[in-house]
Amino acid sequence: MTTPPDSITSVPAAVESALRVFFDSRRPLTDAVGGTFSGAATALEAFVLRGGKRVRPAFAWTGWVGAGGDERGPDAPAVLRACAALELVQACALVHDDIIDSSATRRGFPTLHVEFADQHRAGGWAGDPAKFGESVAILLGDLALAWADDLVRESGVDAAAQTRIGPVWSAMRTEVLGGQYLDVHTEVTGDESVAAALRINRYKTAAYTIERPLHLGAALAGADDALIAAYREFGTDIGIAFQLQDDLLGVFGDPEVTGKPSGDDLREGKRTVLFAEALVRADASDPGTADFLRRGIGTDLTDEQVHRMRRIITDLGAVTAVQARIDELTTSGLRALDASTATEGAKARLREMAVAVGRRSA
Amino acid sequence: MTTPPDSITSVPAAVESALRVFFDSRRPLTDAVGGTFSGAATALEAFVLRGGKRVRPAFAWTGWVGAGGDERGPDAPAVLRACAALELVQACALVHDDIIDSSATRRGFPTLHVEFADQHRAGGWAGDPAKFGESVAILLGDLALAWADDLVRESGVDAAAQTRIGPVWSAMRTEVLGGQYLDVHTEVTGDESVAAALRINRYKTAAYTIERPLHLGAALAGADDALIAAYREFGTDIGIAFQLQDDLLGVFGDPEVTGKPSGDDLREGKRTVLFAEALVRADASDPGTADFLRRGIGTDLTDEQVHRMRRIITDLGAVTAVQARIDELTTSGLRALDASTATEGAKARLREMAVAVGRRSA
Repeated sequence: MTTPPDSITSVPAAVESALRVFFDSRRPLTDAVGGTFSGAATALEAFVLRGGKRVRPAFAWTGWVGAGGDERGPDAPAVLRACAALELVQACALVHDDIIDSSATRRGFPTLHVEFADQHRAGGWAGDPAKFGESVAILLGDLALAWADDLVRESGVDAAAQTRIGPVWSAMRTEVLGGQYLDVHTEVTGDESVAAALRINRYKTAAYTIERPLHLGAALAGADDALIAAYREFGTDIGIAFQLQDDLLGVFGDPEVTGKPSGDDLREGKRTVLFAEALVRADASDPGTADFLRRGIGTDLTDEQVHRMRRIITDLGAVTAVQARIDELTTSGLRALDASTATEGAKARLREMAVAVGRRSA
Repeated sequence: MTTPPDSITSVPAAVESALRVFFDSRRPLTDAVGGTFSGAATALEAFVLRGGKRVRPAFAWTGWVGAGGDERGPDAPAVLRACAALELVQACALVHDDIIDSSATRRGFPTLHVEFADQHRAGGWAGDPAKFGESVAILLGDLALAWADDLVRESGVDAAAQTRIGPVWSAMRTEVLGGQYLDVHTEVTGDESVAAALRINRYKTAAYTIERPLHLGAALAGADDALIAAYREFGTDIGIAFQLQDDLLGVFGDPEVTGKPSGDDLREGKRTVLFAEALVRADASDPGTADFLRRGIGTDLTDEQVHRMRRIITDLGAVTAVQARIDELTTSGLRALDASTATEGAKARLREMAVAVGRRSA
């Protein structure tokens, strides 16, 4: 039995415990299939339990509490399980994104496709290790997505709550896949507009990380439309601000703190709002600079070049513009929250989570 | 509104109509995300609607009818939608399998990853067309899987039926992913045993194509345990027989009828029960022949070599053994069906579907 968290700081541990119980519950199914399938499922479990701040379940849980959910009440364990299911959607998103981005590591460990490629190499098996690794990772990402639905369905929340959360769950999954698709599409087509970058930001991050988790929590609690609208406004604004802050860190972050090479987003060619703001300004003021930015993004820049790009982006006013946007969004998001009927305790938590976004350096 | 089929022959059309209505219902979600996402979803829709015999929904529907479901009753449209959801799981399986197998075409059309790679090339976009195609196909496969769950949840079957079908739906998805995983794993590790080939056959094909769809239909109707057990026995036996027949066609099938080059499975290195039966016999009787088979499988065989391998497989008695297994399984499957409490009409349909398996040449 999973003990529900008694404060927001204990959400990650409670979520992990719920996930552990769920993975145990899948074991008879994977054992029945046999062969090495349970071993593969265990690799997925290790990936899911390895880390992360359980941000999405924390927002969902807090959304539920803020809409009147009783953390010590009889519904709490079932609600916790439904919130924990967000981590399985996230596992699918990360595992498949790591294939798409050809990422070798995540949180200091090999990504899942690399782990299985290594297994292939170590075993001296036939065929291409990279191809094997990607094939297994595609299937294990699918498994995580299927299991996310299983966990919601088997969470124990009652039929009325299931009916309420259905459309939210549905929208959340379609939106994050849409955001990922647009990200992949924009990268190859080279859409440089601020609008395109903001759209990806909104659906790949804001809706998926904050807005819909809060909405899910509210729907679990049977919140009224006004509170749901306030949560969604808060979630969208703070979620976009969160990603904008991430974009700043991707270019200006301290490698010691972020754990990523300095200027990583520039080398990777990430089409961020920050970069779009720089380009639109350069186009208007200095075509040579715009050309330098366009030719440099997504290439194997030297530290010297990264340094120069950073100065240009700053001098163009793009950093100030993004910071102003973060401030505005944080203000409007907090205003929506303050004016809402969420409980005071939940408001305090959400305010703290929102302010942490603006302050974070990694 | 979707009209339920009034006979088994009209299941495919009714399923396609339900799928069309469902895809239309997703449009506001994909339009809200914006950009080119609705276009990508349309490519998925075209893929799903392009073809196939809708075998899985047909079995589920017939399972429901056989357990007392009324094809003209008020529940029929909701049941039809739940059955149609199997085609979306199948879309995910096919789209991801085509990436894993590097398949260029399916049913005479480019596979989804090839379609998007072509789009990339035609647009003269940045980066690697193949990588783009695979990335989009990974995401659209995920979307199909997420939407499969949406369609079940929104099918309109009542809460009691949802509770009954939950574990079946859950098992079916885990089993097919397990079967696919074992298929990929066995191919690289070179597990040559009949047992390994049978396990993949059971979970990748039999459970997923016949057993669980029938079980789903039975659960929708609230069938008793005895009928469910009979359906599952019938489904497993006929499903394995179906795949064994497919294995024979993959080596001996007429290219004019199967649409695939003669001996395709040998060139692809598919580890079928047929091949495992040949190997176990060759190992016992003629090591040189065993060596020839092992060295040849999965290589770019000439027609002459394919011809020789076929003769060896036949002469070793592997074809006879597989045919005997098909006969046995068909007999035992039909016996379980006959002894069941399924309605006479459904029995007749299922018998027809089972016999068609043994007779098919493509």
